[in-house]
Amino acid sequence: MTSTPVARPDEVRRYNRASLLRRLHLGGPSTRAELAGELGLNRSTIKALVDGLAGSGVVVERVPRPGRQAGRPSLLVLPQPEAAVVLAVDIQVEHVALALVGLGGEILGRNSWNLHRRTRTPTEVLTRITESTALLAADLGVRPAGCGVSVPGVVRRLDGHVHEAPNLRWSDVPLGERLAAVLDTRVVVGNDAELGALAEYLRGTAQGSGDVVFVSADIGVGGGVIAEGASLRGTTGYVGELGHMVVNPRGRDCYCGSRGCWETEVGEAAFCRALGLPEGSSRGAVRVELRELDATPELARSRLAELAEWLTLGLVNVVNLLGPELVVLGDLFTDLPDAVLDDVAGAVRQRSMVSRALGGVRVERSSLARDAKLLGAAEVAFEEIIDTV
Amino acid sequence: MTSTPVARPDEVRRYNRASLLRRLHLGGPSTRAELAGELGLNRSTIKALVDGLAGSGVVVERVPRPGRQAGRPSLLVLPQPEAAVVLAVDIQVEHVALALVGLGGEILGRNSWNLHRRTRTPTEVLTRITESTALLAADLGVRPAGCGVSVPGVVRRLDGHVHEAPNLRWSDVPLGERLAAVLDTRVVVGNDAELGALAEYLRGTAQGSGDVVFVSADIGVGGGVIAEGASLRGTTGYVGELGHMVVNPRGRDCYCGSRGCWETEVGEAAFCRALGLPEGSSRGAVRVELRELDATPELARSRLAELAEWLTLGLVNVVNLLGPELVVLGDLFTDLPDAVLDDVAGAVRQRSMVSRALGGVRVERSSLARDAKLLGAAEVAFEEIIDTV
Repeated sequence: MTSTPVARPDEVRRYNRASLLRRLHLGGPSTRAELAGELGLNRSTIKALVDGLAGSGVVVERVPRPGRQAGRPSLLVLPQPEAAVVLAVDIQVEHVALALVGLGGEILGRNSWNLHRRTRTPTEVLTRITESTALLAADLGVRPAGCGVSVPGVVRRLDGHVHEAPNLRWSDVPLGERLAAVLDTRVVVGNDAELGALAEYLRGTAQGSGDVVFVSADIGVGGGVIAEGASLRGTTGYVGELGHMVVNPRGRDCYCGSRGCWETEVGEAAFCRALGLPEGSSRGAVRVELRELDATPELARSRLAELAEWLTLGLVNVVNLLGPELVVLGDLFTDLPDAVLDDVAGAVRQRSMVSRALGGVRVERSSLARDAKLLGAAEVAFEEIIDTV
Repeated sequence: MTSTPVARPDEVRRYNRASLLRRLHLGGPSTRAELAGELGLNRSTIKALVDGLAGSGVVVERVPRPGRQAGRPSLLVLPQPEAAVVLAVDIQVEHVALALVGLGGEILGRNSWNLHRRTRTPTEVLTRITESTALLAADLGVRPAGCGVSVPGVVRRLDGHVHEAPNLRWSDVPLGERLAAVLDTRVVVGNDAELGALAEYLRGTAQGSGDVVFVSADIGVGGGVIAEGASLRGTTGYVGELGHMVVNPRGRDCYCGSRGCWETEVGEAAFCRALGLPEGSSRGAVRVELRELDATPELARSRLAELAEWLTLGLVNVVNLLGPELVVLGDLFTDLPDAVLDDVAGAVRQRSMVSRALGGVRVERSSLARDAKLLGAAEVAFEEIIDTV
């Protein structure tokens, strides 16, 4: 009388297999008993799945290192990195990093190069990605089954169309399509801050926190949001641009057409101004200055006072709007001297009404440092292929 | 071999029944064929469900009004309002409105009263709600099966604890618990802007738009967000406070501890200042002034120039952060003169980078006007009880 869809046994098996692989990929080596408990499957089902995966070389079972427990140790199930490899690409304004990442999240090999005005065109970047990937894959003897790309701009998730990546001076680049054609694989393109947030949530500082904002400073400032455990996106999959929140209406003109955007007040150029470095100084020079300031808290506070104030104000706004439990700061922000970071975190907790209601939002440095976006790119690629491993 | 959960027939039936009722409640009268198509159920299943619901008086079937189509008309299935009634309460700073709302969303009866400093305590408000509900329910001969309450403040969704409703001067009020005890029914308490957004999405201007921001001005300014068709909440269910985004760092002090919050620049007090009315003028006086200005666009533009600029700046920020397809303006904002509203909408589209990427965000007036929050409160109550009708 009813027409409820009832899953066929092979569908159920495929679904359970993918769940198991996802769990091993993100959670690491586990015993069969742990897997059975966490996935809510009985032990005979787990045994059949693990045996099948071991038979096709996707996992191995191994005796754990001694000292783990008394008695006869349970075998650990380990994902085999080479069983599924994805290409992760992190396109930044002055730099491209790429890596081949294996099942389980291990970086098997990597390469990177700098971008200059001349080499920053989509065609140049695509050519170099293709060449570099071919070399790396041949070196490692693997073939990527999917690809994830991080881009600092407004990206349509559906097809990887880059609408506008202003700091790269790209607009309307069908990056997903073009890359899929040359690599002959499935390509997912995401906004860099969204992918950074995803990586922090899955593998970094934000593990176990369902409501997180990730804000990072490079040339530009970007932010990604995890809400109730999922990436927050706007309509048609566009991710917001936290860096273009106006924090200082009397501030500097921004290329976006506004003025006093968060990016103009706390991005790399603002760091250079605060540190008395010529604008356009190398990232390395900025980092060296910041690290030196760590030893002289009072000097750090006075030099970075204005930048810290705009960072605080923007964070208060973000926390008041989104109510996260944790804010993770990435890239250049991770090099802020401890004294300044502690002041900012304290001021956000004091001035944000929503933080007070939540009992105090945490503000922490990214633990993935410069790899956050690269690892996020790997994860969106894995999401696409894990069902087919 | 597998342990997939297979739904039992009575569970499936209950699930289908609730889906059908939810569809009739939100979508209105429909033919059996329409229901079968939209719910993906076969016609015999729909027949059995409709017959069951008609037997217990929850729906009726009727011949549609003539002129709808040629040939023998299909019967329409209509929800019976009295079959499930909820109490909706909209607590505002100077005003409480309540209504008994029937299945299908019809307001069966309503009452409201003004709040003054003396009558604004939680106990006074609770007492009055209880008395007023009893009278209204007796009048209509119905008994509410659930209750939804809208509060202008920071609310913990889980148990309806009002952490802070600053304009009411309430803090740490266990409103959900207290109201549930006196009304002897399930109570859901929500932030007013969240409920306004929900109502616009389900029954108002935003129907059919999955990514929406609702911003409304009363004494305070609040905003609710629908992202991919669901209410966006922060950690532990707290909804953000868009009104406490700082738009003007050199602006007036806000009671929240910040200065230049959106609320201080575009809330009711800012309207009074712009219109040359004494602060604390009645809502009616503000509306009258605004409506008069509608006839003189240039005067309207000059009087409201500063307010419009802060409204624009805040909206640019909201659009850049969240990337909605539609912004719905509620309460006092709906009385903005057309010329000013058009200017604001145009400026947001021009100045927001994300709006440009999206091909232009729409900025529109609420069609539910002052009932948005009340209807949103009804909907969260219906969500809780529709499975049990």
